[in-house]
Amino acid sequence: MTGRGGGRISRRGLFGLGAAGVAVVGAGAATASAVTREAREHTPAAGASAASGSVPFYGGHQAGITTPAQDRLHFAAFDVTTRKRDELVDLLQRWTAAAARMTQGRDAGTFGAVGGDPEAPPDDTGEALGLPPSGLTLTIGFGTSLFDERFGLAGRRPPALADLPAFPGDDLQKDISGGDLCVQACAHDPQVAVHAIRNLARIGFGKVAVRYSQLGFGRTSSTSRAQTTPRNLMGFKDGTNNLKLEDTDMLREYLWAAPGDGPDWMDGGSYLVTRKIRMHIETWDRAPLAEQQAIFGRDKGKGAPLTGAAEFDAPDFAKTGPDGKPVIAADSHVRLAHPSSHGGARLLRRGYNFVDGSDGLGRLDAGLFFMAYQRDPRTQFTPIQRTLSAKDALNEYIKHVSSGLFACPPGVVDAGDYWGRALFT
Amino acid sequence: MTGRGGGRISRRGLFGLGAAGVAVVGAGAATASAVTREAREHTPAAGASAASGSVPFYGGHQAGITTPAQDRLHFAAFDVTTRKRDELVDLLQRWTAAAARMTQGRDAGTFGAVGGDPEAPPDDTGEALGLPPSGLTLTIGFGTSLFDERFGLAGRRPPALADLPAFPGDDLQKDISGGDLCVQACAHDPQVAVHAIRNLARIGFGKVAVRYSQLGFGRTSSTSRAQTTPRNLMGFKDGTNNLKLEDTDMLREYLWAAPGDGPDWMDGGSYLVTRKIRMHIETWDRAPLAEQQAIFGRDKGKGAPLTGAAEFDAPDFAKTGPDGKPVIAADSHVRLAHPSSHGGARLLRRGYNFVDGSDGLGRLDAGLFFMAYQRDPRTQFTPIQRTLSAKDALNEYIKHVSSGLFACPPGVVDAGDYWGRALFT
Ligand code: HEM
Ligand code: HEM
Repeated sequence: MTGRGGGRISRRGLFGLGAAGVAVVGAGAATASAVTREAREHTPAAGASAASGSVPFYGGHQAGITTPAQDRLHFAAFDVTTRKRDELVDLLQRWTAAAARMTQGRDAGTFGAVGGDPEAPPDDTGEALGLPPSGLTLTIGFGTSLFDERFGLAGRRPPALADLPAFPGDDLQKDISGGDLCVQACAHDPQVAVHAIRNLARIGFGKVAVRYSQLGFGRTSSTSRAQTTPRNLMGFKDGTNNLKLEDTDMLREYLWAAPGDGPDWMDGGSYLVTRKIRMHIETWDRAPLAEQQAIFGRDKGKGAPLTGAAEFDAPDFAKTGPDGKPVIAADSHVRLAHPSSHGGARLLRRGYNFVDGSDGLGRLDAGLFFMAYQRDPRTQFTPIQRTLSAKDALNEYIKHVSSGLFACPPGVVDAGDYWGRALFT
Repeated sequence: MTGRGGGRISRRGLFGLGAAGVAVVGAGAATASAVTREAREHTPAAGASAASGSVPFYGGHQAGITTPAQDRLHFAAFDVTTRKRDELVDLLQRWTAAAARMTQGRDAGTFGAVGGDPEAPPDDTGEALGLPPSGLTLTIGFGTSLFDERFGLAGRRPPALADLPAFPGDDLQKDISGGDLCVQACAHDPQVAVHAIRNLARIGFGKVAVRYSQLGFGRTSSTSRAQTTPRNLMGFKDGTNNLKLEDTDMLREYLWAAPGDGPDWMDGGSYLVTRKIRMHIETWDRAPLAEQQAIFGRDKGKGAPLTGAAEFDAPDFAKTGPDGKPVIAADSHVRLAHPSSHGGARLLRRGYNFVDGSDGLGRLDAGLFFMAYQRDPRTQFTPIQRTLSAKDALNEYIKHVSSGLFACPPGVVDAGDYWGRALFT
């Protein structure tokens, strides 16, 4: 545990006992007392809140999908720059080990940020030293482009990972779309999410390069009935009628790839569609309240369907108003996105608000980084988005500027396993 | 309190009793019960934490300067687009009223997000409905360019607001520098900070336009001895030797403009320098630990000076090592930034980490959005930055890409007062 340079200080050591109840503190005599001092300074009040705790890394499914949506996102897509399959496999092993550590509040590598050889770069970049795990989850996905000729994976591409069709109104920018690999880092503290992606990028130096990355905040979906529904940047509650972790049967039907669906290596995995959706914020802010509510088919304050009184009331699409027209308009988002409009599909939405500053024309560069997990995009995202892109009244106020499609393999079951093992063996 | 469209729901109503202990709930019979239901759903546990509480808006100094640094930033600079002085004054009055409301957890305008006339755009954009004040502070500054011929203010420009000189190594981008006005929004929840800037921009439509805006997280300074020191994206503790709100005498000497310093309208105000400093993250991450520590002159784990054992130990700049060289190197950041190197100046630093995604070359577009408050930049920021830009070993790893200089007037004392009143009367 000690390198040439002296004692080692781990993130866990710094904030006291980790979630597993084991303190990993430096053993070097010279620094042991300093570590103890630090640990004392940073020990959170007994009974750290859910926002600082850790989410288990190992399991049959990857964490970060049904995990109650954390508040912050750092999403990164990578291009694989090595042509060697061995190097890619080695990287996935190293990434898995680092992810297993970081999600438990430990640093990314064996020698931490301040241990090991002082003449070598630290194994961890250090900006999360002293911070708790903060609910960090790291979720990997394999993009469509990974299944080309480079790594001999063409024959293992799942049929469900078929390229998405073009949709009317799409204005996709290539440089922020796609990617051979993606990692979704979610946490309650952005510093922890940023730290995780940065350390994975560092570990991957020379083998992968970040293609694009996106920060998000204020989750725009609930993925558990225990969470209150947050609001998106249009001011509406978002996530009301989402697939939630309590919906066990529906998760089986709509979320997880199952034996027989496609290649075995995806059993227990899920498919992720990402869409960066820019909002015309300033135009939206000048739209009357009644129009805003008509566009969604829901009340802005409570989030209730326009035919109901409370957020979780079922919408009554048949109900008409005094003018004989449906109360929930034919072109409203909620009607069109509802399973009854496109053959019954459902999604587990897990998006985040983004504000990337301003666009040089004085407008906020802001919107929704839409992310949705599902069992098969061909029968879920695609028919829903076909319906929305053709008719949704919301289209006047939004523009899809990026798109990504990733196969997220099943979970890593133990320390001997790694992300995507079944795909490469 | 009720408009044509029915009852009004305020942010305070939604999350229960506000900090002042007064519930502002809708009075419309039709929605009163719904509001009560909502209030119940969103009422935080009794004794809401410091992170959700409110900071007083009225006072002799503006909030957001010595206020213990909150975790998140949304900073915006505006160009004034009207040429009419009256319109500018009217805007400052309207902004002040909205700021007084929003910082106390209320919506931006009289009719909220869901009250008033359904055929009119809401007075508030709604995405913070149900969220607590979250420590929001809004701090205004007047940029150098405001004092040109447009508004008859040229004669009132404070001498301390002299343009900053060019520094060696500067690589400033004009479109993200300067600005006639700035607003610094700090809060513990980014959604609340973003909401505030957006609503000010909306209120200013046709009179001001956002020139640029910047999101930040993980405050990189402590401004109170009650806070632990956070880490910047280089992994080092940042804010150790900062001016803090407990340093009453030093604040008088180094922070607040005083009678006789310049024009009266700035008495009790402070000058803000902003510098967006990009870090060469990937290069930094490959630098050996010993080199990183030598550059700062501090230990990475504990933040202690290289001549000491604990974070707050005073650095001993005279101490030499076995090789006869100073332990804290001549070109280290902490030595050069220390009062002993440049005539004794001090700053109240209040910066934030930023990650703006990636730069298209696979590198994180990340660094420090440096903000520092002071009594006179001519004798504080400028001599320090002159010293740093000439010699700092850190320069190899950073680049200043934007610069801003703003006169932040004294506080608004009561509801009859407004931001900058003394400047315009
Ligand atoms: C900026 C773009 C979007 C915004 C602001 C938005 C917002 C909303 C809101 C406010 C709701 C109602 C509350 C809820 O049930 O969550 C909703 C529902 C929904 N949205 Fe979206 N959405 C956007 C794009 C999309 C896209 C691209 C898709 C998928 C292609 C989608 C699929 C859904 C689905 C499936 C529902 C649930 C419908 C139901 O069963 O009631 N949304 N959305
Ligand atoms: C990316 C750029 C920068 C980084 C990463 C950085 C980081 C640090 C760190 C780690 C410390 C030591 C801990 C502390 O006392 O806060 C420090 C101290 C300090 N920095 Fe910086 N800094 C940067 C830029 C600047 C700039 C532009 C200025 C002003 C022109 C500045 C002024 C100071 C001052 C006054 C101190 C306190 C020195 C003392 O009295 O001990 N820094 N900085």
